[in-house]
Order: sequence, then C-alpha cells, then structure tokens
Amino acid sequence: MNRPLILVTNDDGIDAKGINALIEVAKDFGDVFVVAPDRPQSGMSHAITVNIPIRIAEIHNNPNTLESYMCSGTPVDCVKIALNRLLGRKPDLLLSGINHGCNSAISNIYSGTCAAAREGAILNIPSISFSISDMHKDADFSTAKKFIPVIIKNIIENKIAAHTYLNVNVPKVNAEEIKGIRICRQTMGCWAEEFDERKDPFNRTYYWMTGYFNNCDKGEDNDEWALKNKYISIVPTLIDNTDYNSLESLKKLNYEL
Amino acid sequence: MNRPLILVTNDDGIDAKGINALIEVAKDFGDVFVVAPDRPQSGMSHAITVNIPIRIAEIHNNPNTLESYMCSGTPVDCVKIALNRLLGRKPDLLLSGINHGCNSAISNIYSGTCAAAREGAILNIPSISFSISDMHKDADFSTAKKFIPVIIKNIIENKIAAHTYLNVNVPKVNAEEIKGIRICRQTMGCWAEEFDERKDPFNRTYYWMTGYFNNCDKGEDNDEWALKNKYISIVPTLIDNTDYNSLESLKKLNYEL
Repeated sequence: MNRPLILVTNDDGIDAKGINALIEVAKDFGDVFVVAPDRPQSGMSHAITVNIPIRIAEIHNNPNTLESYMCSGTPVDCVKIALNRLLGRKPDLLLSGINHGCNSAISNIYSGTCAAAREGAILNIPSISFSISDMHKDADFSTAKKFIPVIIKNIIENKIAAHTYLNVNVPKVNAEEIKGIRICRQTMGCWAEEFDERKDPFNRTYYWMTGYFNNCDKGEDNDEWALKNKYISIVPTLIDNTDYNSLESLKKLNYEL
Repeated sequence: MNRPLILVTNDDGIDAKGINALIEVAKDFGDVFVVAPDRPQSGMSHAITVNIPIRIAEIHNNPNTLESYMCSGTPVDCVKIALNRLLGRKPDLLLSGINHGCNSAISNIYSGTCAAAREGAILNIPSISFSISDMHKDADFSTAKKFIPVIIKNIIENKIAAHTYLNVNVPKVNAEEIKGIRICRQTMGCWAEEFDERKDPFNRTYYWMTGYFNNCDKGEDNDEWALKNKYISIVPTLIDNTDYNSLESLKKLNYEL
C-alpha cells in the first residue's frame, strides 16, 4: 500500500519554525509535500493572487519532505498551485501551520493558515489547520508536537465530513498541563481595532492597524473557553456559510417593486 | 429624525462604475459615506493589511456623498478604518459593491466585496454585498439599480438577523426579464484552476491563475440556479462557520495519547 501523500502549507512562510515542527510530525504519517509562501502572509485570509504573476521555486535541502516549494502567492495560492501544477495526484491529507499565534474564534476568518485548510475542504481533501497561542518567532512547539499526532491519527482512521475542515488551537502551556482535547464551536466576538497614526519623513500621515480581541461570547462550549482552561480546541468548520435560520423569515418579506 | 448613515465600499476600487451606481441608489436612503480601495482589490477575501502601513486620502468631488475617502488597503481595511477613524458614529447600513462580476456560490469566500459586508456583520451593522454577472469595466448596472432599492427598503424596515449579512447577485439580463427575487442557499461547487505558464524576458517561469467554476450542486434552491433562471439571488450568510452537525460525531472519537 502506498504511504499517504500529505500536503503541508502555512501562512508564516516556509522559513517559519512552526511549519518545520509540523513537517516533523507529518513525516511519521506519510510522504510530506510542502508548498508554502516565500514570506509571511499572515492576515491574508482566503485571498488569491489575480493581478500579478505567481512564481514558485523548489527547495532542495529538506530531508523530511518528498518535495518542497516556496511560492510568491498567498496560502490559498499555494494549495491551488500544488494541486494543479506540482502534485501528481490529490493528497490524502492537507495540514496547515503550525501557526505562530492563535486562530480561535473569528480569527479563523482573517487567518491565511485556516484559509489553506478551507481551500483543501472545498476540494474535498481532509484538511486541518494548527495554531498555537504564541506569536513569537521562537515559540515553543513541543506541546503542539506532542498532541497533533493523536488528532492526525483520528482523522486518518475516522475521516471528516465532506467539505468540513478542522481548526485546531493549542494553548501556551506545557504538555503535562494540557487537560484534554475539546470539540468546540467557534467563539463569537470581534476585534476592537486601533489605528496607530504616524507621520512619514515627508510629513504624510499613515496608519498601522493594531487591536485586541473582544470576547462577547460567555459560553463554555466555545474554543476561547477551551483554550483559557488549558484544553486543545478543535472547531469543525464549514464551507457553506448560508444562514439557514434566516431563509424562511426572509422569504416572507415583500420584494415587489 | 436624523437621516440613516450609510457606509459604502467595494473591492473594484473607488473609480469603478459599480460603486458609483451604488452611491446613486444609496443617496435616496440616507447620507452616504464612502471609504473604498484606491485600486482594484478583487480576490482579496477577508485579508487585512498588517505588514505595511495604510494610507487614506479624502476625495472632494462627489456631490452624492457626505464624505468620500480612498484607502490603500483591502476592502476589510476600508471598513475597519471607516469605523475606527473616519465615521463619527456606527453606520446604520453598510453596502458593498456593486461588484463587476458574480459573487454567487463559493465565490463569496474569495470576494473582497462580500468580505466588506462580512466585516460589517461581525460588527453587527446591517450589511449587504451586491454583484452583477458581468465583469466588464463598462458593465450595465441599470437592472441592478432598479431592484437594489426594494432590497435596501426591506432591510431598513425588517432588519437582518444579528451577525448575518446578505449576498445579493443580479443576473445579466434586462430589468423586464427579471423573474423575481429568490432567497437562496449558497451553491456548493469549486473552482477548477488552470495555471497559465509563461516565461519572462529573463527566461524565468511564472504563472497566471485562471479557471472556471465547476457547479456540482444540482439543487434548485441555490443561488446559481436562481441566476441561471433570471432571478436575483439573496443568500443570508453567517459569521459562525461551525459545522454543528459534526460536533457530536467528533466528540465520540478517542483523543487519548
């Protein structure tokens, strides 16, 4: 039997510590094929590159991978070009991350790491995004590396529903402090932005976007609660965003001119 | 009573014909405040600008607007900076578009126009994205302009569920051929990509992403069916992407090390 073919990508770029941690875990489950951005693409969500050309370059020095490429595009571009140009067949699994920084709650919507898994789910590939609650370049991935294998093993054995991907987040605690793995819903909330106003050397105004997450969801069944209570969170996440609850009430409105 | 304050944005950029068509419709419902990208930002999805500064510039020559700004960032950046820096208060309505090109089915996920409405819904502002099935720069917006007022009027009178936005698409037919307005679910399907391989003058390979939509959804209750049958489609769309159907089955799996 052939070994599973595993596509690995991320949004922090091919040089990030997190993707190398993920490759080390993934190689025990199959042949690892990497296509990742050539530079940080955090916050790129599900963006695709349509106005400029896309370039790819092979990387020859990673013994843990079957083949490894860096791509000038977004994480979603990486998945698309992997599937359409680089891989000889559809992969058995898509793993994205490990992201430097938490992608719980609605951060899922802004994250390039989660978007890569979403693109895999659109193409009906079992797909998982992994993130840890530590944005530092030198973040410690040992807790994540200890628990990710059990999640991958479960998915290989049991499958995910068609067009659903898993958004996995690991809290910033030592492995022995982890209380368990919780299946959760996505926390509702919003980012409270601040725009840091500055002047450039030519006295023109510019802004840096900063902000903090405003958790307005008091439930205990969501991913923010799980992470705060030292659980690893798994949110099964959909491609179909239809608000089925609103369909009937909207149909009752009057749409005559 | 104060007139409603309406924030208008898009992803085709502030010079697009579509946003000006939307401003003309919107001004009959309230004071129009525009913050839109300074250049095309199609396919930017829910991306935010974190690695480079954001700039804004006021535009002084639009008599249909209260104030009008162009922004160097993405559509979602436009909404965020409007809310946090430019508008004195939360708007009563957010309108995005009118997009040159269809955003039905899963195009909703890739679209910057839909993302702006999604950002509005995160912030609990009644939000609607409008698109037409014609990508041309000089597309005819007369059908859209005839029917958009009835949709806006309904939303002002009846409200949308909290954190739900409407994704509206208008088929490329004359107004008298429109059969009606249909409330739909999001069509499932995927884009079949092709990467057009070329050589630059220095003999280095590059790619343009191209592709076509592969509709694998045979239902008659979805937005693709509606558009093909000359209906205007409205898909109520969620922020919470949790796959609630998968929660229980995933909880049964074994997560022991």
